[in-house]
Amino acid sequence: MTTARKRVIIVGTGFAGIRAARGLCGSGLDVLLLDRTNYHLFQPLLYQVATAGLEEESIAYPIRAMIRGWKNVSFRRCEVTGFDLTGRRVVTDSGELAYDYLVLAGGSVTNYFGNEGIASQAFDLKSLGDADRLRNSILCAFEEAVSEQDPVRRVALLTFVVVGGGPTGVEFAGALSELMRHVLSEDYPSINGDESRVILLEAAPSILTAMPQRLQTYAIRKLTDMGVEVRCSTMVSDASPNVVRLASGEVIAAHTLFWSAGVKASPLADMLPCPKGAGGRIPVGSTLTLEEHDEVFVVGDMAYCMEKGSPLPMMAPVAMQQGHHAARVILAREAGTTLPLFKFTDKGAMATIGRSAAVASAHGFNVSGYAAWLAWLLLHLYYLIGFRNRIVVMLNWAWYYWFHERQVLLITSTIGQHARKRE
Amino acid sequence: MTTARKRVIIVGTGFAGIRAARGLCGSGLDVLLLDRTNYHLFQPLLYQVATAGLEEESIAYPIRAMIRGWKNVSFRRCEVTGFDLTGRRVVTDSGELAYDYLVLAGGSVTNYFGNEGIASQAFDLKSLGDADRLRNSILCAFEEAVSEQDPVRRVALLTFVVVGGGPTGVEFAGALSELMRHVLSEDYPSINGDESRVILLEAAPSILTAMPQRLQTYAIRKLTDMGVEVRCSTMVSDASPNVVRLASGEVIAAHTLFWSAGVKASPLADMLPCPKGAGGRIPVGSTLTLEEHDEVFVVGDMAYCMEKGSPLPMMAPVAMQQGHHAARVILAREAGTTLPLFKFTDKGAMATIGRSAAVASAHGFNVSGYAAWLAWLLLHLYYLIGFRNRIVVMLNWAWYYWFHERQVLLITSTIGQHARKRE
Repeated sequence: MTTARKRVIIVGTGFAGIRAARGLCGSGLDVLLLDRTNYHLFQPLLYQVATAGLEEESIAYPIRAMIRGWKNVSFRRCEVTGFDLTGRRVVTDSGELAYDYLVLAGGSVTNYFGNEGIASQAFDLKSLGDADRLRNSILCAFEEAVSEQDPVRRVALLTFVVVGGGPTGVEFAGALSELMRHVLSEDYPSINGDESRVILLEAAPSILTAMPQRLQTYAIRKLTDMGVEVRCSTMVSDASPNVVRLASGEVIAAHTLFWSAGVKASPLADMLPCPKGAGGRIPVGSTLTLEEHDEVFVVGDMAYCMEKGSPLPMMAPVAMQQGHHAARVILAREAGTTLPLFKFTDKGAMATIGRSAAVASAHGFNVSGYAAWLAWLLLHLYYLIGFRNRIVVMLNWAWYYWFHERQVLLITSTIGQHARKRE
Repeated sequence: MTTARKRVIIVGTGFAGIRAARGLCGSGLDVLLLDRTNYHLFQPLLYQVATAGLEEESIAYPIRAMIRGWKNVSFRRCEVTGFDLTGRRVVTDSGELAYDYLVLAGGSVTNYFGNEGIASQAFDLKSLGDADRLRNSILCAFEEAVSEQDPVRRVALLTFVVVGGGPTGVEFAGALSELMRHVLSEDYPSINGDESRVILLEAAPSILTAMPQRLQTYAIRKLTDMGVEVRCSTMVSDASPNVVRLASGEVIAAHTLFWSAGVKASPLADMLPCPKGAGGRIPVGSTLTLEEHDEVFVVGDMAYCMEKGSPLPMMAPVAMQQGHHAARVILAREAGTTLPLFKFTDKGAMATIGRSAAVASAHGFNVSGYAAWLAWLLLHLYYLIGFRNRIVVMLNWAWYYWFHERQVLLITSTIGQHARKRE
């Protein structure tokens, strides 16, 4: 039988995209996933790839392997270059594709707020390539410092500035400090422990501001104990090679600048002829569709969805729930039943700081220390996709916990190819 | 106490270099290892990284972690740019380094015998980056083929030509064929099994010519059963994009060309003012030293060392034994005792063809099939460095054996950045 099935195109294989696809598989609709990468990336653990704790492969799962058992779901690796909303077509680098429903789940990119100096110098963490480059740069800085004769440059090589006191900045700063204090200190005996510094800068008066006050204080104390210099109410104004400039006029000599102080919607949003909310996000109502095109859904970081008077945050739980919800709305429309309205279920927030130290806040409960750390570990293993990946990640974590060893200390860039920025 | 210790510089952290360093550690000599990478690479398993069977990290071991317990051994990551044999100095991109003894263990590079066309089109397997690029290219070819409208280009995308019937060519061809038949066939249901081809070309009348006739025949039969088209007495004359030309005039439309038909000494050899043997290798006697400079040792693939009238082959066992021997000669010279003379102990040769199929030849015994395959597995696990690496490799192998799954199917290059060659 060759009845033409309706086709749903889902752009993006992040948390939102794969939840939408899973919600539609076997429904009688043709589902086509598009992405420029051929894997689903577990972004929350990218910082561990950047700090030599995990290999790239353990936090990525090939899409084609994932969807093998998903009926009527297929995948195409391509670059989306435009949309024809009237003609219901997605334009890609390998041709145009017609759809009946479109789910936009393109995620977000780093927001440098137009500061070219910072954008040209800073590392960020949105892709596997970013993590790879950052790890290479950290390890190269130590290798270079060993034979550096100029004392000023040696100081800069061993100074790491992290901008942004959200979960990513805190987790990266903590993991980097542990890498330096426990692993690299063994590997580079000629570098004094006090010489290498991690400085965490945050513009707000505190870090992890989405968390209760008590957990913020715990996180600052714990990071400080671990050797991270936490400086709140501090803004970065500009950067140039080996230099980070603060709004106060202060200059920090630092070779490595990591930026986690902002995200904005994927450039895909700019291809749509509709008004934008803060961060270039696309406003959607409680069916997660565009006002003028109720066959077009926007979910995850790209969506600007108000709830209780404020926009939902750009984070994984929102993306997962919205992806799943878009599938439900499509199925309801096909069935001709009442369309369900989206309501975010807040399951809480957590961040890990270091070995046996994390903070978690959920349903009015605030936990810090070992219990929160264990909860963080188990939850991340649970959400990681693929049994083999879980085993490899557990193995790496156990190794690190017991032996204080990180084994992914490879510099995979070649000498001279020491790029500071994305290619 | 600050008595000036004599310094041994070892260039290269491959099989020969690390054996030399280990043989000298704790001897009272200062040992400095130099390499442009910061890890020891287990080259014999590179083909499994290229065919999505293993992650990069599992076959590389960071040098600094390796030498932590090795007394008086240190490491510097740098590029060697020249030698001053008279002044006993190594010139590097981060300054000059004086030595009392020099051990050259720079290994080998691929030999295209001056054929620019082939060199510009072919992939090879000498570094982690090579394996990464080859895996990306194989997977990209399948992704492209799915949406390719031009039937001629589709055929080329799905045709993989392997040149060289030595162990590397045989192992790569076998692993690639299994990847295509058992894994990619599931992931790309729109590609017919017969469409994707692996063609193994060998100029000699047979493959694995260092092995006994019976094992050669077994290997050819086994490869053929696995779907590899084995063509002996066939020479490649040239290549251009999507085309491989044979000496017979025949043209094969193939997007991917893998070259394992020759190696030559590392370009480091050209920096030495001495005569060269075949493949640019440096002739040494049974103390493994240069005739004019008995403080300079050449070991491994760079050395042209005659035994029983023919030069020793460029392979890992020779490199390991020579590296170890150079250390013994240095210690004997320091102790003023008789210098030991190098004699290669041939422990046999082996090659794996596919699942439960390998050939091994040692001490007059020739084994093929399951027993040889198991021996190959255990021996490679034994020589792999690092307990964690052994576990990860075993895990991957078990996974593949039981579930016919390879999980390292990531395309890490970005769209459009589909390089055919080394950067």
